[in-house]
Amino acid sequence: MSKRQLHLNVNILSSGFYASAWRTTDANPFAFADIGHYVRAAQIAERGKFDAVFLADQPAINGRLDFGPVLALEPTIVLTAVAAATKNIGVIATASSTYNEPYNLARRIASLDLVSGGRAGWNIVTTANPAVARNFGFDDVAQHRERYVRAAEFADVVKQLWDSWEDDAFIGDKASGQFADVSRIHAINHVGPHFSVAGPLQVPRSPQGRPVLVQAGGSDDGRELAARHAEAIFSVAQTLEEGVTYARDIRARALRFGRQADEIVVLPGLTTIIGATEEEAQRREKELWDLLPESFALDRLATQLQIDKNRLKLDEPLPDDLPLPENGSQTFFLAAVNFGRRNNLTARQLLRGLGGSTGHRVIVGTPETIADSIEEWFNAGAADGFNLMPDVVPSGLEAFVNGVVPELQRRGLFRTEYSGSTLREHFGLRRPENLFASPPTQVKSA
Amino acid sequence: MSKRQLHLNVNILSSGFYASAWRTTDANPFAFADIGHYVRAAQIAERGKFDAVFLADQPAINGRLDFGPVLALEPTIVLTAVAAATKNIGVIATASSTYNEPYNLARRIASLDLVSGGRAGWNIVTTANPAVARNFGFDDVAQHRERYVRAAEFADVVKQLWDSWEDDAFIGDKASGQFADVSRIHAINHVGPHFSVAGPLQVPRSPQGRPVLVQAGGSDDGRELAARHAEAIFSVAQTLEEGVTYARDIRARALRFGRQADEIVVLPGLTTIIGATEEEAQRREKELWDLLPESFALDRLATQLQIDKNRLKLDEPLPDDLPLPENGSQTFFLAAVNFGRRNNLTARQLLRGLGGSTGHRVIVGTPETIADSIEEWFNAGAADGFNLMPDVVPSGLEAFVNGVVPELQRRGLFRTEYSGSTLREHFGLRRPENLFASPPTQVKSA
Repeated sequence: MSKRQLHLNVNILSSGFYASAWRTTDANPFAFADIGHYVRAAQIAERGKFDAVFLADQPAINGRLDFGPVLALEPTIVLTAVAAATKNIGVIATASSTYNEPYNLARRIASLDLVSGGRAGWNIVTTANPAVARNFGFDDVAQHRERYVRAAEFADVVKQLWDSWEDDAFIGDKASGQFADVSRIHAINHVGPHFSVAGPLQVPRSPQGRPVLVQAGGSDDGRELAARHAEAIFSVAQTLEEGVTYARDIRARALRFGRQADEIVVLPGLTTIIGATEEEAQRREKELWDLLPESFALDRLATQLQIDKNRLKLDEPLPDDLPLPENGSQTFFLAAVNFGRRNNLTARQLLRGLGGSTGHRVIVGTPETIADSIEEWFNAGAADGFNLMPDVVPSGLEAFVNGVVPELQRRGLFRTEYSGSTLREHFGLRRPENLFASPPTQVKSA
Repeated sequence: MSKRQLHLNVNILSSGFYASAWRTTDANPFAFADIGHYVRAAQIAERGKFDAVFLADQPAINGRLDFGPVLALEPTIVLTAVAAATKNIGVIATASSTYNEPYNLARRIASLDLVSGGRAGWNIVTTANPAVARNFGFDDVAQHRERYVRAAEFADVVKQLWDSWEDDAFIGDKASGQFADVSRIHAINHVGPHFSVAGPLQVPRSPQGRPVLVQAGGSDDGRELAARHAEAIFSVAQTLEEGVTYARDIRARALRFGRQADEIVVLPGLTTIIGATEEEAQRREKELWDLLPESFALDRLATQLQIDKNRLKLDEPLPDDLPLPENGSQTFFLAAVNFGRRNNLTARQLLRGLGGSTGHRVIVGTPETIADSIEEWFNAGAADGFNLMPDVVPSGLEAFVNGVVPELQRRGLFRTEYSGSTLREHFGLRRPENLFASPPTQVKSA
């Protein structure tokens, strides 16, 4: 029972990781805005004993609606509906520290945490998309460093707000009329460069103490934020070596913040294309690729690399002189560029190798070969588990749950039943001490 | 069938309208933060064929936690869970235009609207509580007029965002690969004194077109906002005459904004204390009053009147020189003060007449006498229905659904079944034209 166990999240990206997923035979094209789609996917993941449903987010149209779906519904809304239709699986909502107020966000995630019985997590992002900036009164995105400075203070404020109520603050004694012990409900009185927030939060703590803090940044600023605050990390790694190096780096940074190495669960992104045979898996990959307009994939890569798309030639390697974008996602830039150069890929081959998307690892194979790779990474310390992005949802998720999960369970790597009811328990994270915890009133010093 | 019909919302104020509701025999003291409490209340209201569940809100602790519950869980989260557990009843969330960004709020309510199948409404408030200001970096509340100027622009932006997608913008043609007709998805490019928002919103319109806009202000600024934007109004009226005058005034103002009188449903707040006999109802009122510490009620009244509580003497009438608060809720100030003076009440009598609360009308009686009063107001044009605030939830709501609703139905005043599936249909409001609607492409001029 004490054997180290894998952790698995499913990241439901509308109809799936492939922008062409909505065009596959069984797909509901409107799935991106259909709550039933998300609920059913979560139920499948719960049948597979996944740790959590993870939802990415940007508050703007984040793609080409002429070609395919975008992130539409607000994640805390979707995940509340998911929580109502499930019993154990965690629910992790992405929300931007650049375009929210900490009080509102702390309250919304805390509400989701209570409503779900202690299953909520918040994935903090700083949001590099200029289209988002223009929805919030800005002409362009704030500088990378500045966004992360704000994010760190934002997370500080949110964690304090989440701890406003000590666990025994609620009394509810009908006879005496005492509702709460207000000496155990704390104002935070935060005053900082970006925020002044008095508190206390109006929401009591949930069974897991406070929501799990998740982070997904790979830049130096992002790693510092993760090392200081994150309890689970959605990372990017194309190779086992990259995975090992990243995990070591994060744990070393966390130690410098006075944290323990085991306080952080590292979950690289992973896209799977599963077939009963290798040939069937390859056919499925080809079908998804053939349904994806090349010009769409090219646009997406150019946007991500922050270069003019005319500089990308489909049958040539990437240009040599690609500057690291000063203000976009450095993580995805490096993942994509290094992947292309390491394998001497033309732009078209690179696009296809990335599944037409951002920079996460794509595996095409049978349940056994996929389980082999997962086991290898897990044992090497490149991953504590994965943030799974099935090629198509729900079919690719079902293939994983029906094929890969039993294989992982047979190998003793993954739970066969939930042993806890909160997201912290699924992730093996301790319930945090309340930041404001006072000694029990009945204890006197000797 | 064409007979004018009543509209009924239930405003679930934690354990009920009475701050002492949590102390009654069957109450769950933790109900204020228990999602099951809200879901069960909504299911009872749906059994009673209510139009909607309404949730008030402030993003701060809005009461005395030593004495009783506060508004805790974020309303769109609660109402998503309510929508998942119900089929027809509408869901109206209060959210502040002073402490939100229009893009985020428009998206959250639009998401709730889609998730609920077109049952959502947004109650716009400007939030006069200084404790809220201090959770958002301000030392004090912005001036009344300024808050309403911002609110009007905020509502303009939100309505445009809600109309970003024309109804036929989504295509979803797997064969051609066309996902959406982007010529029918519109940027709003709003630039105003408070907000610059590019859009489009990333969420398509729901079956009801866009969420219903609800407003609750009674001040001159509030009435102007309501007349310009509101489709349903949660008003305050202690007497039938006040109700008639208010409804006439709002409809006259709406006409000046080029709107129709029947585009607005006026719903005064109403608290009911129901007994099988008058004596039983009076006993219930006394029980609730006796459980409510007088000092708590006195504090609340002093806060609302924005005067030092030492100026209120329990056995004397209100002081004569009470200035209209420049920056609090003028509506509740006037409702409470006029009620007290009209009836020559001492402060204690006033407190008790207001149910220890804000200024809404409280009726104590049998289902028949309560139905009589509702019918009288409805026929006189003082109300199109009521925003019901049961003394205790769920027991007072059940008493209303089991006793008053059948009586109203017998009198032909209230629906016996839902005739539509959206909140607009329940309220008898037309589905709005899309602000950006372009002529159908296939129609040519002759």
